[in-house]
Amino acid sequence: MKSFQDYYPDDFAICYGCGRLNEHGLKLKSYWEDDESVCRFQPQPYHTGGHKFVYGGLIASLTDCHGAATASAEKHRREGRQFGTGMFTRFVTASLHVDFLAPVPIDGTIVLRAKVDEVKGRKSVVGMTLFVDDKACAKGNMVAIQIPDDFLDR
Amino acid sequence: MKSFQDYYPDDFAICYGCGRLNEHGLKLKSYWEDDESVCRFQPQPYHTGGHKFVYGGLIASLTDCHGAATASAEKHRREGRQFGTGMFTRFVTASLHVDFLAPVPIDGTIVLRAKVDEVKGRKSVVGMTLFVDDKACAKGNMVAIQIPDDFLDR
Repeated sequence: MKSFQDYYPDDFAICYGCGRLNEHGLKLKSYWEDDESVCRFQPQPYHTGGHKFVYGGLIASLTDCHGAATASAEKHRREGRQFGTGMFTRFVTASLHVDFLAPVPIDGTIVLRAKVDEVKGRKSVVGMTLFVDDKACAKGNMVAIQIPDDFLDR
Repeated sequence: MKSFQDYYPDDFAICYGCGRLNEHGLKLKSYWEDDESVCRFQPQPYHTGGHKFVYGGLIASLTDCHGAATASAEKHRREGRQFGTGMFTRFVTASLHVDFLAPVPIDGTIVLRAKVDEVKGRKSVVGMTLFVDDKACAKGNMVAIQIPDDFLDR
């Protein structure tokens, strides 16, 4: 099954967080699971913030990319369009908020679940919860803004 | 001149964002400049989020580590203690907020300036602004919590 990011046009597929074409990056991949968008990520040992815990910047990075991907996928869904057909609608982050509820173990698999809480014009608000072994370790919230369709031509 | 992070005990110096002992990491370094704490960072080309702009996760990562370092340095300063003498007081992030004001050019040098806005018991609130060429591109705000001194012994 192809992820949301597999449908990004090449010009948008170089992001360090989620670009399939960025060989140094995290290559985060997001999928629908029922009405939630979900990504799973296995941290590397060097993604530590100290001891056996994941550093906060990785959690913020996953939240940022997964949130923007979810805003895009939801926009397509609400318009009844499949990814990969017609104009691809992408989003950038206007603001990002993360509440760290509990340390994230470095050897656990991160599961990040997202839903679009609000769509207003070009703005989408995405709420997320990060789990490891079904324990909620962080909550994320982002405001994403739809990029103009002619952005690449400008 | 030694940075704040150069004084972190080895056990705290493995963070991907700011650990001097993490060979894969960003090795962020923070210093006092008058009453502000400042870090400078040169993104690599692969830190892109698309086109010639830095990806949001890097900005959030720098904000997270620089904010926690600033909370620690300010705590030492308010207690009249030099880094590297006596017990080292470190902080973890309880929440992180970033407002992205303008795209951050990938070839610019990031300058992140921070101040502690509030200290209340073990909690510190840190405000930050990220500049490139003197243009404010992002605002950050974090709540940092002081780690118990006996954390490593537990």
